[in-house]
Amino acid sequence: MLTAIALYKRIGILAKVNAQNPEITDRFIELHQVCRNILSSVNRVPLLSLIPEKRYFVFQNEKKNSRAINLDLFLEDISAVENTIKHLINNELGSTSPEEITKALYTMAISFCAVIDLGKSGDQKTPGTFFEYFASHWFAQTLLVQPQKSIRVLNLDRDASLPTDYIFDLGDNRPKIHLPVKTSTRERVIQVWAHQRVLDGVYGTGRFLGMLVCLSETKTDQKKLEVTDICLPEQWRAYQLFIAQLYRVYYLDAPSKYLALNNVFPPINVKTLGEFFYEVHSLFRNA
Amino acid sequence: MLTAIALYKRIGILAKVNAQNPEITDRFIELHQVCRNILSSVNRVPLLSLIPEKRYFVFQNEKKNSRAINLDLFLEDISAVENTIKHLINNELGSTSPEEITKALYTMAISFCAVIDLGKSGDQKTPGTFFEYFASHWFAQTLLVQPQKSIRVLNLDRDASLPTDYIFDLGDNRPKIHLPVKTSTRERVIQVWAHQRVLDGVYGTGRFLGMLVCLSETKTDQKKLEVTDICLPEQWRAYQLFIAQLYRVYYLDAPSKYLALNNVFPPINVKTLGEFFYEVHSLFRNA
Repeated sequence: MLTAIALYKRIGILAKVNAQNPEITDRFIELHQVCRNILSSVNRVPLLSLIPEKRYFVFQNEKKNSRAINLDLFLEDISAVENTIKHLINNELGSTSPEEITKALYTMAISFCAVIDLGKSGDQKTPGTFFEYFASHWFAQTLLVQPQKSIRVLNLDRDASLPTDYIFDLGDNRPKIHLPVKTSTRERVIQVWAHQRVLDGVYGTGRFLGMLVCLSETKTDQKKLEVTDICLPEQWRAYQLFIAQLYRVYYLDAPSKYLALNNVFPPINVKTLGEFFYEVHSLFRNA
Repeated sequence: MLTAIALYKRIGILAKVNAQNPEITDRFIELHQVCRNILSSVNRVPLLSLIPEKRYFVFQNEKKNSRAINLDLFLEDISAVENTIKHLINNELGSTSPEEITKALYTMAISFCAVIDLGKSGDQKTPGTFFEYFASHWFAQTLLVQPQKSIRVLNLDRDASLPTDYIFDLGDNRPKIHLPVKTSTRERVIQVWAHQRVLDGVYGTGRFLGMLVCLSETKTDQKKLEVTDICLPEQWRAYQLFIAQLYRVYYLDAPSKYLALNNVFPPINVKTLGEFFYEVHSLFRNA
């Protein structure tokens, strides 16, 4: 059986060639099994949650704690996760629900992150890169498009290539998707709106739909065993008003302070990631 | 004699109350003496420079290397640094030059950073915060204005306060200065243009002059003892064209690839920090 890191690296290699490759789905399922096997042998410690109506715990080994895990989103039953993923990839959306898809994807993503958190290296890059592979796979698999990671910027004198987050080109007369993927955003999130602004400027407003995908915004105090979430909704409003418009923000563990931005005017559309799969075809029909 | 960290903390406390306080200048001079005393007892090792026409070395103790130091900007003679600073604070610009001021400020800033680099903690935040205190002091002392670190964003419903980089309000009928300060920029620099965009959007284009202050862009391979610089001039051009306009970028160790942006059209005005003190009064006269 391959280790978690070996599977993660294998997925990275496969995704570069063809992010829709069904083997990637299989490898994510296998990776989840490996991670859950590791996590089954370590302790769980409940956190004091400062986030209203949400409960969290951490996995704990001899030396380290994992990041906070949302108790109500984490599926204990591995086969429940796998059944939901099967419905998702077979496009049997009537047999599952946005909530079940969100929970299944959350459980898979947070399990890998927790395994890395418990490792020796203090590695912060691997969970971020993993989550990029993970989120982009479900988008590629749903949209049937291979994402790209740079675009041409037309200058009058000469062309330049600008590195970007994932871009999904849906073809002529349809919008393109600009898909930044972050495990959490904090103060770095202004980059997302700035990249959207560049795309709007280069190609014209409305050509790229900005869809930010995030895992969660929790912050854990490992000494006090407390968890809170870091949210900056007023800053998001300023960015949405003054830099560019993001079309959607999808979360696996959506903070209520950001969900509340659906109800301000002008709204920012923040949803759980599971909802994407139910709205995707209406989003791009003649958009 | 206070330690380097104690002096740094003292400067932080003083700057919050009054960034023009002459005691801050004295403390920076004292801090430089302390740092040079520490650095005089450690080895210097030359680096293989991959940057054309620039020579670098590192300070090295038993366990660690400092960041790269530009040999031609680093003033061996502490009294030369202090004389230049005296001319600067007494507004005797005829007795010194932009080059001498740049060298003096570079020597002071890089010496403190090197001392922190050689310390046990692997602390990356202290050099960044130090450099914010350092750069903003000379601006406050020159402009005779106390900087602020947030601005009001007018929404129609209610006001919000947005955290910002340093803002210098020069008063009615004059521009305000938006002064981001970074030891190096890399891919995070897009934040600077994005913040400028928010200010332009909230207050109107031209109200805030964006002036980015940077130390250097070197990257050292500590195993190979090689130094290079990480520059993304094509991305800067895209940001300047499509996000917002920065009015100036000042460097202590200016990369030639960014200086070359003065010669493209439309240009980005990249200069050495010493030049600021000679152009400051023409910049804001009836601007």
